[in-house]
Amino acid sequence: MSRTVLMPISQPTQAPYDLQSPRRMALIRIWDAMFRGARRYVEANGFVGVHNMPEIVGVTGACENIDTLFKVDYFGKQAYLAQSDQLYLELITPYLKRVYAEIQSFRMEPEADDRHLTQFALFEIEHLGDLDELIGHLTGIIQSIAAMVASDCVAELAHFDRQPADLPAAVFQRITYSEAVEILQHDFPDLAWGDDLKANHERLLTQRFGPVFLTHYPLPIKFFNMRQNDEDPRVVNSTDMLLPFAGESAGAAEREHDYQRVAERLRSSDMYHRLIELGGTDADFAWYLDAHKDKDVPLHSGAGIGMARVAQYLLGLADIRQAVPFLLNSETLL
Amino acid sequence: MSRTVLMPISQPTQAPYDLQSPRRMALIRIWDAMFRGARRYVEANGFVGVHNMPEIVGVTGACENIDTLFKVDYFGKQAYLAQSDQLYLELITPYLKRVYAEIQSFRMEPEADDRHLTQFALFEIEHLGDLDELIGHLTGIIQSIAAMVASDCVAELAHFDRQPADLPAAVFQRITYSEAVEILQHDFPDLAWGDDLKANHERLLTQRFGPVFLTHYPLPIKFFNMRQNDEDPRVVNSTDMLLPFAGESAGAAEREHDYQRVAERLRSSDMYHRLIELGGTDADFAWYLDAHKDKDVPLHSGAGIGMARVAQYLLGLADIRQAVPFLLNSETLL
Repeated sequence: MSRTVLMPISQPTQAPYDLQSPRRMALIRIWDAMFRGARRYVEANGFVGVHNMPEIVGVTGACENIDTLFKVDYFGKQAYLAQSDQLYLELITPYLKRVYAEIQSFRMEPEADDRHLTQFALFEIEHLGDLDELIGHLTGIIQSIAAMVASDCVAELAHFDRQPADLPAAVFQRITYSEAVEILQHDFPDLAWGDDLKANHERLLTQRFGPVFLTHYPLPIKFFNMRQNDEDPRVVNSTDMLLPFAGESAGAAEREHDYQRVAERLRSSDMYHRLIELGGTDADFAWYLDAHKDKDVPLHSGAGIGMARVAQYLLGLADIRQAVPFLLNSETLL
Repeated sequence: MSRTVLMPISQPTQAPYDLQSPRRMALIRIWDAMFRGARRYVEANGFVGVHNMPEIVGVTGACENIDTLFKVDYFGKQAYLAQSDQLYLELITPYLKRVYAEIQSFRMEPEADDRHLTQFALFEIEHLGDLDELIGHLTGIIQSIAAMVASDCVAELAHFDRQPADLPAAVFQRITYSEAVEILQHDFPDLAWGDDLKANHERLLTQRFGPVFLTHYPLPIKFFNMRQNDEDPRVVNSTDMLLPFAGESAGAAEREHDYQRVAERLRSSDMYHRLIELGGTDADFAWYLDAHKDKDVPLHSGAGIGMARVAQYLLGLADIRQAVPFLLNSETLL
C-alpha cells in the first residue's frame, strides 16, 4: 500500500467540470447508495437482473422520439444508441415474470441546460401484472433508495445541505391526467385536454401534491404499446412519476399484449409515421411484433426510472447538471 | 394480475437468435447471480460503485487499440463509444480509495466468431495498492461469482450440463510472462520473448495450469500507463487473468502515477503514435495528464473483467456467443 499523501487540487484541469471535487465524491457515494437501495427492493421482490442488454440497437431501442437517436455506423448498417431496452425486456418478462435492468439511455439533445443530458442511467423494470402493481413497485423502489441514502450517506448529504431527516418520505399521491388538467387550467387557461404536460405544469403539480403519480394519459401522446383503458378508450393505463425539483422521473405503463392491437397501435403512432418518413419499414419492428404473433402473451407492465432525476429529488437540486457523477451533455465531452 | 397462460413459441422470429429459449432464460438468471456475486465481494470489501460513467467519450475511453473504436458524431465533434472507463475511475480512486463500475465495452470488431463481441459487460475495479492486492481482489471476485452461481442456479446450470459441484474452485496459479514464454517455446519454437500471446498460447497455459494470473508482461505491448517494474524495466507490473475455455478474461495492472513518467509513457506508446497519425493531439489526454501534474498521486491499481468470458469459464463454453444473454457482434443487430 502506498504511503504517499494526496495533495489538494492545485491546478485547473482542462476537463469541462471538476471531476475531483469533494462534492462530486459525495455525489458518487450517494449514487452508490441509490443503486444499492433500488437493487435491494428488486432483489427482495424477486426481480431478475438482466445484464449485457443491447446499447447499440435498431429503432426498437428508441423511446418515443426517434429524431433524438444518436447514430452509429454499424458495419455499413444504420444503428443507434439505445434510449430504452423496454422492448427487449418485454420479450423476457413472460418467462422470468419480474425483471430489471440498469442501462445507459442516450438522447441527442442539443440543449445543455438544467433539464437535459445526452446520457443518463435508466433503471428499467418489467413484470407480469397491471398498473396498480407497477405503481406499488415504483413506490417501493423510491422508498428503498431514500432509506439507503438516509442510512449510509449522512456525511455526503451535508455537501448538499441535507440531513437524513430532510429526505422526502416518498408518500405518493395519485391523480389522473384529466384531474391534473382541470387543476392546471386555473393557472394555464390555454391548456387543453389532450395536450402533453410541460415542465412548468409538472412543477405546479409537484408543488401542490409532492411526489405524484399522474395516471391515464391521452393515448395519442404516449408510446405506441401503452395499453388502452378498457372503460375510457381515449386514455392509456400509464403513469408518469413526477418528483419535486425533477418533474417527470419515470414513464410507466401496462403494455398492449395482443398481437393485432399492438401492430395496429404501432402503425397508427406518430413514431411510426416519422420512421416511414426517414426510410424505415415494418421490418424494423418485426422481431418485436413476431414475438406476439399467435401467442398468448400475458398482461405485463413496466417503467424506466431516470436515476439523475431521483438524485435531484433527494438532494433538492433544480439543475440536473449538479445531480450526476459524470456530466454528459452537448457541451461536456470528456 | 393476468390469468392468461403463455404458450410455447410456435413461430420462427426474424430476430438473429432466439431471445426466448429456455437456455437463454437460464443464462439470464446465471448472469444475474454472477453480478450479485461480484457485487457481494466488492461491497463487502469497501468498494464504492461509480454510476453513470461516460459511454460516449474522447480517445481517453479507448483500450489499447483506437482503430476498434465505434465513432459517434457528437454535435459536430468526433466522439467514440467507450471501451474502458479506467482513466475516469483513476481520477476518483485517490479520494474514494476503492471503486468499481459496471460498464458496457464496445469494440468495432468485424469478426463474428467464437471469440469476438462488439458489446460486452465489463466489471472494472480500481483501488489504492499494488499488484499483489489487485490479484487478491480479482481472485475474490471470481470466487464470489462462482459461489453465488453454485448456490442460486442449480436448475439453470443443468441447461449447460453443469452441476454446482462442477463449478471450478477458482484456485489460481501465478506465473510470469517470462516463465510462460519458456514453457510455450517447447510447443511454439518461433515464439520469442516480447511477443504478445495469442489464443492458442493462452489455451495451452490454461490446460496446464487451470485459471492462472500471467504477470509482468513486456512494457511495449501493454497499455501506456501500466507501471514499469522497479527491478526489471523491461516489464510492467501487470497481470492478465487467463481462464479455461475463455483465455484472457481480465487485464490488470498497477498504474504509473508520476506525472513526468506517465506523460513520457503516453508519448512513446504505439497508441499515441496511431492517435497522431489519425489527427489527434496531446490535448486528447489533457484532462487525464493534468490530474497528475504537481500532485502526489498515490500508487493505485485496477482491472477490467470481461463478464462474458467469466460465463464461458463457469459454463465450460468455448464459444462466447453461447455465453451472453444478448448477443451483439457484427452480424446480430437487433
